[in-house]
Amino acid sequence: MKTIGFIGLGVMGKSMARNLLRAGYSLVVYTRTKEKAEDLLAEGAVWKETVKDVAQVADVVMTMVGEPHDVEHIYFGDDGILKHVKRGAYLIDFTTSKPSLAVRIYEEAKKKGMFALDAPVSGGDIGAREGTLSIMVGGDKEAFSACMPLFSHIGKNIVWQGKAGAGQHTKMCNQIAIATNMIGVCEALVYAEKAGLDPERVLQSISQGAASSWSLSYLAPRMLAGDFAPGFYVKHFIKDMGIALAEAETLGLSLPGLKLAKQLYEALAERGEEQSGTQALYKWYKEW
Amino acid sequence: MKTIGFIGLGVMGKSMARNLLRAGYSLVVYTRTKEKAEDLLAEGAVWKETVKDVAQVADVVMTMVGEPHDVEHIYFGDDGILKHVKRGAYLIDFTTSKPSLAVRIYEEAKKKGMFALDAPVSGGDIGAREGTLSIMVGGDKEAFSACMPLFSHIGKNIVWQGKAGAGQHTKMCNQIAIATNMIGVCEALVYAEKAGLDPERVLQSISQGAASSWSLSYLAPRMLAGDFAPGFYVKHFIKDMGIALAEAETLGLSLPGLKLAKQLYEALAERGEEQSGTQALYKWYKEW
Repeated sequence: MKTIGFIGLGVMGKSMARNLLRAGYSLVVYTRTKEKAEDLLAEGAVWKETVKDVAQVADVVMTMVGEPHDVEHIYFGDDGILKHVKRGAYLIDFTTSKPSLAVRIYEEAKKKGMFALDAPVSGGDIGAREGTLSIMVGGDKEAFSACMPLFSHIGKNIVWQGKAGAGQHTKMCNQIAIATNMIGVCEALVYAEKAGLDPERVLQSISQGAASSWSLSYLAPRMLAGDFAPGFYVKHFIKDMGIALAEAETLGLSLPGLKLAKQLYEALAERGEEQSGTQALYKWYKEW
Repeated sequence: MKTIGFIGLGVMGKSMARNLLRAGYSLVVYTRTKEKAEDLLAEGAVWKETVKDVAQVADVVMTMVGEPHDVEHIYFGDDGILKHVKRGAYLIDFTTSKPSLAVRIYEEAKKKGMFALDAPVSGGDIGAREGTLSIMVGGDKEAFSACMPLFSHIGKNIVWQGKAGAGQHTKMCNQIAIATNMIGVCEALVYAEKAGLDPERVLQSISQGAASSWSLSYLAPRMLAGDFAPGFYVKHFIKDMGIALAEAETLGLSLPGLKLAKQLYEALAERGEEQSGTQALYKWYKEW
């Protein structure tokens, strides 16, 4: 695994790529806006003009892009990864995307003698920077094991979840748990304020017991401080919930909590909060 | 504060009373079913035949009963606490009950020269046994300070939340946050199972990151093990959510997440799960 190709250098992707570069791997990169790559290039990464150019020289291709249709395009397009990558290469998609698309990539890769893994992550910008992401991996176990040394520079809690698509499905479980909990966190806070309590003091009581959660500890204080800067974008969360609900329907599952969360977040987006952090859900309760 | 009267010796109350007894306080007790008191009596507590008998001899009266109407009865009844307790006594209600009832008790107590605190707790049977409960206190701050030595034998995270009723309101915030989160925990697990994942392995991935919560760490494994024994009863949870929703309506608040949670739990109760632990919500998704 000499050369790693990394496609998609947003907030998450760039930090992940940097950790690999610093671990000593040779890195070729492509992202839509070249300026975003410049500091990485200064650290020794090599720029390529297209996805195809990356694919042709890489032993491992990693992708971290926005939406499933971006994933589809860079894997299946005429100038895409699957047409141009070397036989025996490993393809790792870190994007949170559709399980069914992960399966399609896996099957097409297999036909052509490559190994594909879906490996969505959790832990946000800080986790990406510090190399402490949770990585949820689907695909062949042998391929997972072969890529473990790479994952170990990017994350801490790295779990093989099963066959192709299992990584994406696991990420959906993660998003489902978060979505409904965010409703409870907001409702607890607005209740506290309306009841005339001091919400910070309420957090002192409730954030250590049975109501405790990551969102209550880390996002509730931001809500109270009026800090709605994105750690994780509302627009991406809506995308994820849309995927999860579509999958749930396919599986014959009714998820009323997730459905409610998606409705609330859509109402939030309609009011211009697409680019805010997910903690902006609090505004839906406070301002409208 | 020589003699403490303790009324209500259920799973929680008995452990709390025992911790005070072991700390060296003189304890008189009453509970509806005398057998429940027997081991405490063997340890040195003194039995009284009625609430009135407890009230007459106690410097501090503590109550930990089931429902708001029980609270109302033992405080306001003809043989109740408020009619028979000594002037200058402290009255502490640990029951999760209505904020408005806490205010009524406080005002009536004040008129008669007593000090009332509402002090609902969180932390379950284990917290009560180990003296590590969270205690959320409403009432006069001086009374809170005076009772702090007593609280310190029962709990760990003891916070004065504000005037009378503020303890109950804070407990409502706690229940609101838990209720909606429970939906997310169940939905994440059923999704995992339906998608063909190994749910235990999914928990390995998601219970440490942004989706992490007490319920995901402690209740999700019980759901998967089919263990629906009560740590906290479905029937009591429904009572609490009912109080919270009624209060929210009074405050002019719409809490769609809490409303959904109450509906789901009521459907669960109708199917005979009233006496199960709150993690039985999982059955609603799995079995019906």
